[in-house]
Amino acid sequence: MIRIALDAMGGDHAPHTEIEGAILALREYPPAFVVQFVGQRPVIEAELAKYSDLDRSRIEITHAPDTIGMGEKPLSAVRRKPQSSIVVGLTLQQRHSSDAFVSAGNTGAMLAGSTLLLGLHDGVERAAVGALLPTVSGPVLLLDAGANVDCTARELTGFAHLGSVYLRDVLQRPNPTVGLLNVGEEEEKGGVIVKEAFHLLKQSTPKLNFIGNVEGRDILAGHEKFGRVDVVVCDGFTGNVVLKFYESVIRLLMHLVQSSAPKMWEDNEVRTAFHMLDYSQYGGSPLLGVKGISVICHGSSNSNAIKNAIRVAVQSVESQLSQHIAAEFAAGVATRSA
Amino acid sequence: MIRIALDAMGGDHAPHTEIEGAILALREYPPAFVVQFVGQRPVIEAELAKYSDLDRSRIEITHAPDTIGMGEKPLSAVRRKPQSSIVVGLTLQQRHSSDAFVSAGNTGAMLAGSTLLLGLHDGVERAAVGALLPTVSGPVLLLDAGANVDCTARELTGFAHLGSVYLRDVLQRPNPTVGLLNVGEEEEKGGVIVKEAFHLLKQSTPKLNFIGNVEGRDILAGHEKFGRVDVVVCDGFTGNVVLKFYESVIRLLMHLVQSSAPKMWEDNEVRTAFHMLDYSQYGGSPLLGVKGISVICHGSSNSNAIKNAIRVAVQSVESQLSQHIAAEFAAGVATRSA
Repeated sequence: MIRIALDAMGGDHAPHTEIEGAILALREYPPAFVVQFVGQRPVIEAELAKYSDLDRSRIEITHAPDTIGMGEKPLSAVRRKPQSSIVVGLTLQQRHSSDAFVSAGNTGAMLAGSTLLLGLHDGVERAAVGALLPTVSGPVLLLDAGANVDCTARELTGFAHLGSVYLRDVLQRPNPTVGLLNVGEEEEKGGVIVKEAFHLLKQSTPKLNFIGNVEGRDILAGHEKFGRVDVVVCDGFTGNVVLKFYESVIRLLMHLVQSSAPKMWEDNEVRTAFHMLDYSQYGGSPLLGVKGISVICHGSSNSNAIKNAIRVAVQSVESQLSQHIAAEFAAGVATRSA
Repeated sequence: MIRIALDAMGGDHAPHTEIEGAILALREYPPAFVVQFVGQRPVIEAELAKYSDLDRSRIEITHAPDTIGMGEKPLSAVRRKPQSSIVVGLTLQQRHSSDAFVSAGNTGAMLAGSTLLLGLHDGVERAAVGALLPTVSGPVLLLDAGANVDCTARELTGFAHLGSVYLRDVLQRPNPTVGLLNVGEEEEKGGVIVKEAFHLLKQSTPKLNFIGNVEGRDILAGHEKFGRVDVVVCDGFTGNVVLKFYESVIRLLMHLVQSSAPKMWEDNEVRTAFHMLDYSQYGGSPLLGVKGISVICHGSSNSNAIKNAIRVAVQSVESQLSQHIAAEFAAGVATRSA
């Protein structure tokens, strides 16, 4: 049985959303996993009590009296609060009592905690947050989406490998295309670090299916020549800006359609079109490079997003994502340009 | 009479689109300006001949036998092709025979040519491309949108001043809010350069209406506390990625609505909602910091975008944008943090 630990105290509407999402996941997905709620036991029990005739056979609770708030400084909070739900949840995995951890809590604390408690695979210089962006031809993975504001060329190259393994394992794309986010397609575009990353990535072909530089427009529309860009590599500054910008565009457009053409919103096809662009269908963002599985959810996640994050965690464990990342980096990645 | 030079050979559908756009502008806007077409005279004349009973009283042609292609290296093309439409058009302004130049041609050549031929105002370290992004509460200016991939903190501070003058002069917003694009609101967020820029900008208050760090989501949705962010400051790498990403999201959504619910597209309200988000209504992106007026249009601009770019150029001249930028920088901008 796969064991998915879930931070019950994490998101903006915890524990209600987390528990609802977990119950949806338990009902809808194949019964290959148990959910380990991590948080204040009485609060979790009170919330669970709201569900009549709930099957508790695949529900566990691990008590964690403390919580880390959204505004707390990540690293010091992780160090000062060993009894917080994030630290307790990750420690379960560190001690092999759990296979994955999912949280909609303080993102920085998830990053710091996962790196400290799980550690990085040999050869991985930095862990990266992978954000799945919906496109008409299926999701693409943008990374790093916010863990590292400044990145070296070697780190960017590492992200390409992390993303490629994720795409192969979790999205079943055997030979994922990798693009380096830049301001133009030509090899000489971008600053010093991006140019160096271009050469390292080029050198990593054919181990990586590197298609070259891609531009902002290619993220969602695909590359003119190579089509969908499965893995879009960038530093965490650019990735974070793009991700948050994207979320706001979709919300803005839904708002516009709803307010300017309410009749349109009654149309099932239109709602389906917008749903296709709703990030919550992908649930959470995997933190890639750590020894284990750590899935970071948006603080404002709804129960659908939590449900899907649990699915992502289960798939990551089933497909042996962490082991495959270890193997990818053990085989060596390009660290010096020709 | 204000003299607007227009590169007739610039865009993907030149000269048809340029000439159609100019004729629309001449017909629709107050008759305070003349259009100076720059390009191959026979080609321009042949295109103009397609318009019967055209009033030629506000149309001039300056012959430029050569063109700079989209794929040419900007700086060397500008140097090697003194007879190209871009160089000839900018030279008109340099010699005080024109007040503004608009082109949908090679963006890099426009940047290099404008900087070389017009020069920068004293105190301006780098010129910046300002991109107008539509939001529900009116356009916001994102800069730099692609002229400078790497920027120093001082240059970012300069962009804030350039953008503020533009907002006051051309968009008539007397006290524009300025936000520094970052991965979080807190002062300590971001890399070294962005942190330094934060302090320089803070020091520039109240001359600048600096509201602090803003995130990707705030660009279109506005800041939670301060509302619309009139000027969003970032380096040209991030700005270029965001701009191109934005254009592709809007196209993707229009495509989705058109294909999933074609009947909806017949609804005026729906089209109006999308039109609100269509960047072509703003026409072109001003290159700010040069001595004069230079407006850069998208290569794929339609005639509506060209028409609006001419309007932007006229407004920039009328409002004395270039003189006001000179005055802003002559008064000194913060160049050292406290």
